[in-house]
Amino acid sequence: MSACIKVVKIGGNVIDNPEALRAFIDDFSKLQSPKILVHGGGKEATRLSAKLGIETKMAGGRRVTDRETLDVVTMVYAGLINKRIVALLQSVGCNAIGMCGADGNTIRATRRKPQPIDYGFVGDIDSAGINTDLIGSLLSSGITPVFCAINHDGKGGLLNCNADSVASAVATACTRLGTSSLIFCFEKAGVLKDVDDETSVISNITPDNYQALVDGGIISDGMLPKIDNALKAINQGVASVTIKSSACLLGDTGTCISK
Amino acid sequence: MSACIKVVKIGGNVIDNPEALRAFIDDFSKLQSPKILVHGGGKEATRLSAKLGIETKMAGGRRVTDRETLDVVTMVYAGLINKRIVALLQSVGCNAIGMCGADGNTIRATRRKPQPIDYGFVGDIDSAGINTDLIGSLLSSGITPVFCAINHDGKGGLLNCNADSVASAVATACTRLGTSSLIFCFEKAGVLKDVDDETSVISNITPDNYQALVDGGIISDGMLPKIDNALKAINQGVASVTIKSSACLLGDTGTCISK
Repeated sequence: MSACIKVVKIGGNVIDNPEALRAFIDDFSKLQSPKILVHGGGKEATRLSAKLGIETKMAGGRRVTDRETLDVVTMVYAGLINKRIVALLQSVGCNAIGMCGADGNTIRATRRKPQPIDYGFVGDIDSAGINTDLIGSLLSSGITPVFCAINHDGKGGLLNCNADSVASAVATACTRLGTSSLIFCFEKAGVLKDVDDETSVISNITPDNYQALVDGGIISDGMLPKIDNALKAINQGVASVTIKSSACLLGDTGTCISK
Repeated sequence: MSACIKVVKIGGNVIDNPEALRAFIDDFSKLQSPKILVHGGGKEATRLSAKLGIETKMAGGRRVTDRETLDVVTMVYAGLINKRIVALLQSVGCNAIGMCGADGNTIRATRRKPQPIDYGFVGDIDSAGINTDLIGSLLSSGITPVFCAINHDGKGGLLNCNADSVASAVATACTRLGTSSLIFCFEKAGVLKDVDDETSVISNITPDNYQALVDGGIISDGMLPKIDNALKAINQGVASVTIKSSACLLGDTGTCISK
């Protein structure tokens, strides 16, 4: 594939806001490249769990996923949110297809070991577990895959995975098809020097300045795994990773992570 | 496509019984033809509605689908049941892909008019609304589409449809790709002369003997729309329609409806 494949990830805050989601969908549909969307949806899952009287337990930012919670996230991510997004994309002329990793055997995950924390039905993936045959053939036909973060273990079981990691692994696997880039969209303008100042976006992060940003406390908490995922993707051949506002998908803004 | 495309529909009673479902999945994976699975799942939707305090209203055998109920059926049909089936099929070597009609713009539905009964977000489909490009390309690649009965209106909305009608329309649309046949699997051995006698299967129904069976009260109630769907498919070019037990998918049993 000659054009760069863009893998875009959107998180729960955009999904949770119908107006922001619709605006994002409009922008995403205008991206010219072959493209793939990966979405989260934790907030809606937490709400459904609460309605069903299922306690939401988090450990290290990850949802502890017992059998009941696996059903909830499968319903919310692979059903409600995935199909809502696909229907919206179709309405603006983007021929999308919603998938979980079991669909077309596209993404296999490995259940996380129960020590030191038993996360239940939570899986980890790497790009080797991604089958790019179907993904490549869909992209060549002008079809846009939309992945939720539910994947399968190949033995009939579904596993709840982290959507950032899915996006990173998909972008990495897409280097087998040609060039790929990865865009993390969220509610802020990029990686900020000062979290309270939206104008303090760090334009570029490279392996050279990364450690100083961590040591200086500028990159911390939730941003650390995102940047780790980004650097991992870069090191495995993804051309560039951008972290930016979901409202500015088409603009040349945000934080670019590159070699 | 030279081989006959088999479109198989399974209903809620099979889906609701994990052992029966697993046995069915094993059998389905052994079908040699290019094949498509269409599934219902009303019982699970009714259970989730009850847990969420949403009243289930039926009219003429069809679920009245308000906004909240549309979310429930999207979660249950397109999420929970569809992905469970796909993961099970993958585990027995059948490369399945789960879809709703919005995915790949495969099935468009038209919202039912609110008179004389307002069914809410309920859609009707016909084979003209089915895009066989992607279906044909998946089948040619050895991939098995698994459809739930959620479709889209092309304007960003999802619609709850009848799974028997989806199966019938898909089988009819597949005549564009070659020969197709349709198999309705349910909990009985076929269309029975005596509903209490599983050995009283009517082997053949044709337009010639159909009216006499209706007039004699042998075909009535829930079986009427199934046979109407079957005859419609036959009249539109589907080679054969079989109504049989989900436990006997591979055997030469059940009721065959033909011209």
